[in-house]
Amino acid sequence: MDICNEIAAIIGSNRVLTGTDAAPYATDWTGQYKGAPLAVLRPGSAQEISAIMKLAYATGTPVVPVSGHTGLTGATLATDALVLSVDRLNKIDDIDVAGRTATVGAGVILSSLHDAADAHDLIFPLTFGARGSAMIGGVLSTNAGGSNVLRYGNTRDLCLGLEIVMADGRIMNLMSALHKDNSGLNLRHLMIGAEGTLGIITAAVMKLKPKPRAYATAMIAVPSLDDALSLLHTMQDSTGGAVEAFEYMPRNYIDRHVAIMEGAKPPFENSYDVNILIEIGATAQRDATPGPDGQIPVVANLEEALGTMLEDGRVLDAVIAQNESQRKEMWRRREEAGEILVKGDPFVNTDIAVPLDKVATFEREITPRLKAIDPNCVEVIVSHLGDGNIHHTTFVSRNDPDAMKAMVEAVEDVVQELGGSFSAEHGVGISKLDTMRRRKDPVALDAMRAIKAALDPKGILNPGKVIPPT
Amino acid sequence: MDICNEIAAIIGSNRVLTGTDAAPYATDWTGQYKGAPLAVLRPGSAQEISAIMKLAYATGTPVVPVSGHTGLTGATLATDALVLSVDRLNKIDDIDVAGRTATVGAGVILSSLHDAADAHDLIFPLTFGARGSAMIGGVLSTNAGGSNVLRYGNTRDLCLGLEIVMADGRIMNLMSALHKDNSGLNLRHLMIGAEGTLGIITAAVMKLKPKPRAYATAMIAVPSLDDALSLLHTMQDSTGGAVEAFEYMPRNYIDRHVAIMEGAKPPFENSYDVNILIEIGATAQRDATPGPDGQIPVVANLEEALGTMLEDGRVLDAVIAQNESQRKEMWRRREEAGEILVKGDPFVNTDIAVPLDKVATFEREITPRLKAIDPNCVEVIVSHLGDGNIHHTTFVSRNDPDAMKAMVEAVEDVVQELGGSFSAEHGVGISKLDTMRRRKDPVALDAMRAIKAALDPKGILNPGKVIPPT
Repeated sequence: MDICNEIAAIIGSNRVLTGTDAAPYATDWTGQYKGAPLAVLRPGSAQEISAIMKLAYATGTPVVPVSGHTGLTGATLATDALVLSVDRLNKIDDIDVAGRTATVGAGVILSSLHDAADAHDLIFPLTFGARGSAMIGGVLSTNAGGSNVLRYGNTRDLCLGLEIVMADGRIMNLMSALHKDNSGLNLRHLMIGAEGTLGIITAAVMKLKPKPRAYATAMIAVPSLDDALSLLHTMQDSTGGAVEAFEYMPRNYIDRHVAIMEGAKPPFENSYDVNILIEIGATAQRDATPGPDGQIPVVANLEEALGTMLEDGRVLDAVIAQNESQRKEMWRRREEAGEILVKGDPFVNTDIAVPLDKVATFEREITPRLKAIDPNCVEVIVSHLGDGNIHHTTFVSRNDPDAMKAMVEAVEDVVQELGGSFSAEHGVGISKLDTMRRRKDPVALDAMRAIKAALDPKGILNPGKVIPPT
Repeated sequence: MDICNEIAAIIGSNRVLTGTDAAPYATDWTGQYKGAPLAVLRPGSAQEISAIMKLAYATGTPVVPVSGHTGLTGATLATDALVLSVDRLNKIDDIDVAGRTATVGAGVILSSLHDAADAHDLIFPLTFGARGSAMIGGVLSTNAGGSNVLRYGNTRDLCLGLEIVMADGRIMNLMSALHKDNSGLNLRHLMIGAEGTLGIITAAVMKLKPKPRAYATAMIAVPSLDDALSLLHTMQDSTGGAVEAFEYMPRNYIDRHVAIMEGAKPPFENSYDVNILIEIGATAQRDATPGPDGQIPVVANLEEALGTMLEDGRVLDAVIAQNESQRKEMWRRREEAGEILVKGDPFVNTDIAVPLDKVATFEREITPRLKAIDPNCVEVIVSHLGDGNIHHTTFVSRNDPDAMKAMVEAVEDVVQELGGSFSAEHGVGISKLDTMRRRKDPVALDAMRAIKAALDPKGILNPGKVIPPT
């Protein structure tokens, strides 16, 4: 390929991968999507990416940006396209402690940013299971969510500035660190969550937050999802909104976790339908400073609240983490979701959101519709309940594509009936293209098409993703 | 005008204002901008607005949307254009107490939403001086800021869903109440802050927040802005981020307030350079429940902290509001900024943002540059210090347009040198069009132009605003 030679002259031939070197980028980690990239490029700077995009623009060559390669929707699938990896843009340029911002390259691994912030007694709060591989570029491009959205928001709420290489290779500088900046149309939010269809994010200014001085973390079993929501409201009220995570693992999840993961233990001696992982972060000094009895107030308060609720039956069982290793074990159970949901039988996976108080309705409505399609299917749910975000997986008894498609439809039908979204935090990629076409507001779809055509007139940036053609 | 007759047939002739009826819309409330609208339209629904836009689109007639008419940048100035007021879309359709959302028309007055939320022990936190006139449509279209951004964010952070009438009259339905929804390009954030150049916002789903159970409000004099920032950090740390407002009023502001407003009193017996209005909102029960001594913990904590700082000289003077009327008086001093800054001599007004720790540098740098232009000019500053947002006004000694232009340039030069923004929370309108052209990233400007052309191909939506032509 001529263009590959030209690119090699810019970034070095050892940075242009083909054949077996490129193989890891030909498939995604779930194994659901298989592509055939022309080559994989590993430029080292925004300037090199700019030069590559100028060549791609001149020749009309499609470019698929990738960073940590941990997506779940096939958004980085590339066939007859160049894969452009930003993994070498992995420098944390600055941690501004007073301003509480981090200036980072798109190739910085999420957990590296966690560590860098921690060294200054700050946190970058966004977190999820794949944090050891996921990179800032992909986190921004999918507007990733995760377990702490309840308190800190999605990725877009944690980003102040961006640098983006546009389709024609020009570099757009939106690298502001300001909390107020109303200078024209908001291009930052347009680029965040665009999954690389409008430009390639090369750097960002991210917000950092004060590190909680203490955590209260617990596994709690409650009689019903309604009780779970009232537990959430009670704890939010008593802590002034310091609940960082409120994760729901029903019986089916606990069972599968114990069955699949070696050494996994159930949270309680008895087993329950509704199991909640709650974590409260104490940022205020007086909530974290041990009292004369040695008790940390944030933990003591949770213990007291749970004691009262155990007595009157609103809570069935509860375990508070007594140390960091118990806390980690509670989190491990939750974060192994990715692994336990893609192992074993063929499955149908969805990433949906409904209003908070509709999660129970969703559960009630969906089961009979799935059983009607496959009476032997097995459902597993794990949910960021505090955000109304459900990851619903159905393991099917036979590998029948039509039945599996009908199951996705069934889930999305219920979600739509409940005023929810078919795509909560994983993005659209190619997996939800068809759903976008049928379920997204048609005027919004046309607006997206018009914007795509305006900013990427040759259609070379991650073509065929996110926005369904007319 | 033919089109006015056609519109009158749709919305009623009494809803098509001309002549003296239309006069209030021909000028803005600062009196700086004067237009000549073809007519002022007062449709009563999104459907009527849709029908109007279809006519406007077919005939290529410019339409300028307006709601509360309290903007400061000339964004609703209309000449040879129809003014479309959304003021009749003033219904609060729903307050969802459990979901903590409000579904509102674009014509709902900000203070009406405050009252409606308050009736359910909730708040809509966004607030500023013009809240009794400003309407949700304009608040969203300018991504308004105000005094509580520090804790609750800008308008865009408080909006979950939108309904928008597009240039061609189609209605785009983005009325989601979900906290996670990654279904394609984020059009909501693109429309927020677009000042009516991409579509007309007709309805919205806004977030509500728990009402603080108690407030601690105080006026505090400190030796320097550095001391003010360390006071902010101290109070944020001790309260776990519960500081709602941190407003800076320098000596020049206090002096002008006392001089201009009848009955206005200075905050302290002595006068100081750096005066801060702080407000802390206690949402957690235990911070708001009076102790055995009758003291409210959030107030007692502030008192204790200020006592320590008074002793060691970090605070020079302090008054804590002892009741709601004292609290209101502290706020009145701050919120009369709008009035005292547009009364009297000719003035140059700016709405800028710099990184938090650069406010003092800005003050030091700007004075000599302004004095070099007009040795007798008088500066007055009021600042949302917690956001780095400064409203800098210069009262000039003579009405010389060239000198006044040079002053704006001087302010913007310093802001740019400090990595700030020339437009923090009031928007661009026409007042900062020329600045946009010269100071905004050129690639970003081209992207804005491309998006504008894509979504409003005939250029009929609020033409000549926000985006400077090439």
